[in-house]
Amino acid sequence: MTFETSLIDSALRNWRSNVDRVDKLFGNLPQEQLLQEIAPGKNRLIYLWGHLTAFNDALIPLLGFGSRTFPELDLMFVSNADRTVPTILSGGDLKIIWQETSQILLTEFSKLSAADWLQKHGAVSEQDFLREPHRNRFTILLGRTAHIAYHLGQAKLSERAQTT
Amino acid sequence: MTFETSLIDSALRNWRSNVDRVDKLFGNLPQEQLLQEIAPGKNRLIYLWGHLTAFNDALIPLLGFGSRTFPELDLMFVSNADRTVPTILSGGDLKIIWQETSQILLTEFSKLSAADWLQKHGAVSEQDFLREPHRNRFTILLGRTAHIAYHLGQAKLSERAQTT
Repeated sequence: MTFETSLIDSALRNWRSNVDRVDKLFGNLPQEQLLQEIAPGKNRLIYLWGHLTAFNDALIPLLGFGSRTFPELDLMFVSNADRTVPTILSGGDLKIIWQETSQILLTEFSKLSAADWLQKHGAVSEQDFLREPHRNRFTILLGRTAHIAYHLGQAKLSERAQTT
Repeated sequence: MTFETSLIDSALRNWRSNVDRVDKLFGNLPQEQLLQEIAPGKNRLIYLWGHLTAFNDALIPLLGFGSRTFPELDLMFVSNADRTVPTILSGGDLKIIWQETSQILLTEFSKLSAADWLQKHGAVSEQDFLREPHRNRFTILLGRTAHIAYHLGQAKLSERAQTT
């Protein structure tokens, strides 16, 4: 491996590790438990899982891999707060969508060279990117990994034992 | 910038962004608020902040930058659960230690080349590193950034308004 590919390999390992933790934490919970709040008055587990799924799905166009597969997730899990939208998806639906979007992302990630990772992401103009070249795909990957970890920490609080 | 330095720059930006969020979230809270639990029966804010500070301090030897500056943090914030150790530091103390360790890390990070980042970290043997070259400093940086984000998500729950 070159230095570049080793650095990218580390970032992809960190991404996969956090995605795997989401699978383990949410993937096997019955619907009844998914409907529980992580703490009194806070978001329910299903909302956090849907929120992370919507963000993963939105990465597909942001990183230039194609169109979103489930844009309807945003109304349920991003632009509206938990418990304000009457119909949201079940855990079974989310599991399928989470796995499908995760697979698309991993497949596309594996095709990118270092130069590709350092290209601009979809939400920055060519002009802004000239001034701010750090607004690239790699920065998005790292930021979104931290975003998954942020909500994993919250979801973990729903478990009974005290954990850090 | 070369590809290598751009990739490292992205990772350092992500690190700094999470460290800055810790500063903002914990740094200005009065002691009274720091002693509140993030949710009923869960860790107090002061414990999470001390926990993150202990982990940052432990990065100093792990990444080969020198000795720990505050090893006593571990007993209070890592190896023992919250509320099981009678004396813990105040927010004022933690603020100083957090800023001091953050500064040491940023200074040392800025000296590392791509080759340096890809060297083994302090908790892996030479022999294991030959088989598992991803156990390097860069992987530690990314993992610890996610660790900060994980606890930031939890600490954020102590704020009154519903947030994701």
